[in-house]
Amino acid sequence: MKELFADRMAKTHKSFIREILKVTVNPQVISFAGGLPNPNTFPVQEIIEASKKVLSEDGEDVLQYSTTEGYLPLRKYIADRYLKRKGLKISPDEILITNGSQQTLDLIGKVFLNKSDRIVVERPGYLGTLQAFAIFEPIFEPVPLLEDGIDVDLFEKALCSDEIKLFHAVINFQNPSGVTYSREKRLALADSCRDRNMVFVEDDPYGELRFMGEDLPSMRSYLEDNIILLGSFSKIVAPGLRLGWICAKKDVMEKIVIAKQASDLHSNYLSQRIVFQYLTDNDIDEHILKIREVYKKQRDLMVSMIEKTFPQEAKCTRPEGGMFLWITLPENLSSLDLFELAKKVNVAFVPGKAFYVDGGGNNTLRLNFSNSDEEKIEEGIKRLAKVIKKLIIENK
Amino acid sequence: MKELFADRMAKTHKSFIREILKVTVNPQVISFAGGLPNPNTFPVQEIIEASKKVLSEDGEDVLQYSTTEGYLPLRKYIADRYLKRKGLKISPDEILITNGSQQTLDLIGKVFLNKSDRIVVERPGYLGTLQAFAIFEPIFEPVPLLEDGIDVDLFEKALCSDEIKLFHAVINFQNPSGVTYSREKRLALADSCRDRNMVFVEDDPYGELRFMGEDLPSMRSYLEDNIILLGSFSKIVAPGLRLGWICAKKDVMEKIVIAKQASDLHSNYLSQRIVFQYLTDNDIDEHILKIREVYKKQRDLMVSMIEKTFPQEAKCTRPEGGMFLWITLPENLSSLDLFELAKKVNVAFVPGKAFYVDGGGNNTLRLNFSNSDEEKIEEGIKRLAKVIKKLIIENK
Repeated sequence: MKELFADRMAKTHKSFIREILKVTVNPQVISFAGGLPNPNTFPVQEIIEASKKVLSEDGEDVLQYSTTEGYLPLRKYIADRYLKRKGLKISPDEILITNGSQQTLDLIGKVFLNKSDRIVVERPGYLGTLQAFAIFEPIFEPVPLLEDGIDVDLFEKALCSDEIKLFHAVINFQNPSGVTYSREKRLALADSCRDRNMVFVEDDPYGELRFMGEDLPSMRSYLEDNIILLGSFSKIVAPGLRLGWICAKKDVMEKIVIAKQASDLHSNYLSQRIVFQYLTDNDIDEHILKIREVYKKQRDLMVSMIEKTFPQEAKCTRPEGGMFLWITLPENLSSLDLFELAKKVNVAFVPGKAFYVDGGGNNTLRLNFSNSDEEKIEEGIKRLAKVIKKLIIENK
Repeated sequence: MKELFADRMAKTHKSFIREILKVTVNPQVISFAGGLPNPNTFPVQEIIEASKKVLSEDGEDVLQYSTTEGYLPLRKYIADRYLKRKGLKISPDEILITNGSQQTLDLIGKVFLNKSDRIVVERPGYLGTLQAFAIFEPIFEPVPLLEDGIDVDLFEKALCSDEIKLFHAVINFQNPSGVTYSREKRLALADSCRDRNMVFVEDDPYGELRFMGEDLPSMRSYLEDNIILLGSFSKIVAPGLRLGWICAKKDVMEKIVIAKQASDLHSNYLSQRIVFQYLTDNDIDEHILKIREVYKKQRDLMVSMIEKTFPQEAKCTRPEGGMFLWITLPENLSSLDLFELAKKVNVAFVPGKAFYVDGGGNNTLRLNFSNSDEEKIEEGIKRLAKVIKKLIIENK
């Protein structure tokens, strides 16, 4: 049936990361490649209690079809939390529950993207975004990330030279780079976008994973109308439940509801009820504090091991939260070559090239520190240091 | 942001049924409108046990991200069951787990449909199909359903006059009509499609709900290569878990995996594990037998109440399974008018017009018998009979 496939499928490919992750199936391999939360932080016992409760008390309802928008008390909870944490006034009617951020991006693609629409993405950027949007065949305009967020000059240049429909940004502890937009950058960006007829997608799966530094305002506090804010329970409760959400104003929400209905009627209702019960019966802030502690410890250890063992030519970011470090090797080195060397000593990571939609990033790599432990970090970074040194010598 | 919406959204609308269902929120209303399974048949206790087991024994894994294709043991179970029930040889590699049939249709749309591709749908047809595919802006070619399946002459005419990319059929106890394709019709259809370069989508959510008559072969037993077979746990376990599946050959499956990954990474893993545990620890055939008994009893009562109370001019189908009856009123009557009259006596149904993508069906309506009980059926049908008689008199 090959010649029957839609044109869009010619432009989509299996995830490069997926292929890389095959290496990590070998239990001998110390993997910093995946982008997974640490399963030790999952509140398993509490989820058992919550499941038992919702199924025993309301089983026939919990297992029945439900509403497209999602369980109203859960949407209220999310709205209340935005008010408490961020001072954001969002009505529960402006929130729809999705199967995690990946589906949220798919819904945004459905609602906004015509073929050949231009959209600005971060460079390097989150692969899932590129994959979700690629289905709708837009033209990607990658704009470089600096240490404090996107390059606003180049961003404005892109906005002026072309009609840009949408900008997607992960403004806290970005995947893959770990970059967080500074307060000044947020203000400048808001000024750039305020009076333009475009959509700002603020994708914030990692925002709650800040373990040092000052919490910064959501872009939604600067841009009221043309902003869509995304959140997820994957990093603060558990990803296997596949639950995220989208916040958008009424006119957009009407279209999102239609797209969601067409996509899968509604998100898993059992999971929605379990998560709401869990949030009601437990102190989520206390739980998030625990996750932050674990991740900070592992991030600190990875950074200090890198400082101790990597050659000076290799630069490393110092993120204040999230799950990733970003390494930049000397320009003449290839992280794909490094990947092959590392494979031989049973260490894995993601070569940075995977995150550049338009090529580049050959000398960069992403290291995940969340889904690891101290022993693996010590040993893995030592081995990685050795092969980096070897690569430098080979390329002299 | 209105002028930013994608063109496709101009062609999609909120489900007409959704609007109708608003009437049924009133607890006074006896509703035959929804398309829901009967919650009394949900195996609540068994799901509680299964949840406890998978979370206690393997919680950290169950709550983590998982594979795009779905839990392998569940896919093996589905493959084994096809072999046992239908003699179909399907490899687990040819099965991918989705969030129910609605998402499966979305994935098929993504993989196959270019704008303006022509697709044949049943007339009347399942609304969810039309909604899912409408996102990809195809041209629908509705072909009428007869009592024993689609009108093959008109189907062939459609195939010959235009290039048809895809045909979507619910061959067992179709929603909304309750029609099942006869053996002869299946053979004739297979002959029509066999050597054509088109996709046959065999959507079978109700196939296991046969409570009388002879089980008939899957179209997959006639068409090996260009057929995609869909199934769902919504009607045999519970819909709130949002789990269905797609069976397709390797070349198609490769594309489906890419589309699924872009759509939401993978289906709810907790639900997949719970359903597999439930299927392992319980006798699903015994459970399905119970569902069939309940539905048959309610279907028989509804049919006999209709025979007793409806005026002879109103015709009613006699489905051998599924969840719906289909009523045809005299041609000069409108089921929308009937809906207004029925609203006044607190009875709801879906006017047939909702299921005709190209207009028509004004004198038809769908009655759901699964999500009801004997008392409601007796009383509701009596009330409906009265307003039908009233409508006939008013239109004389």
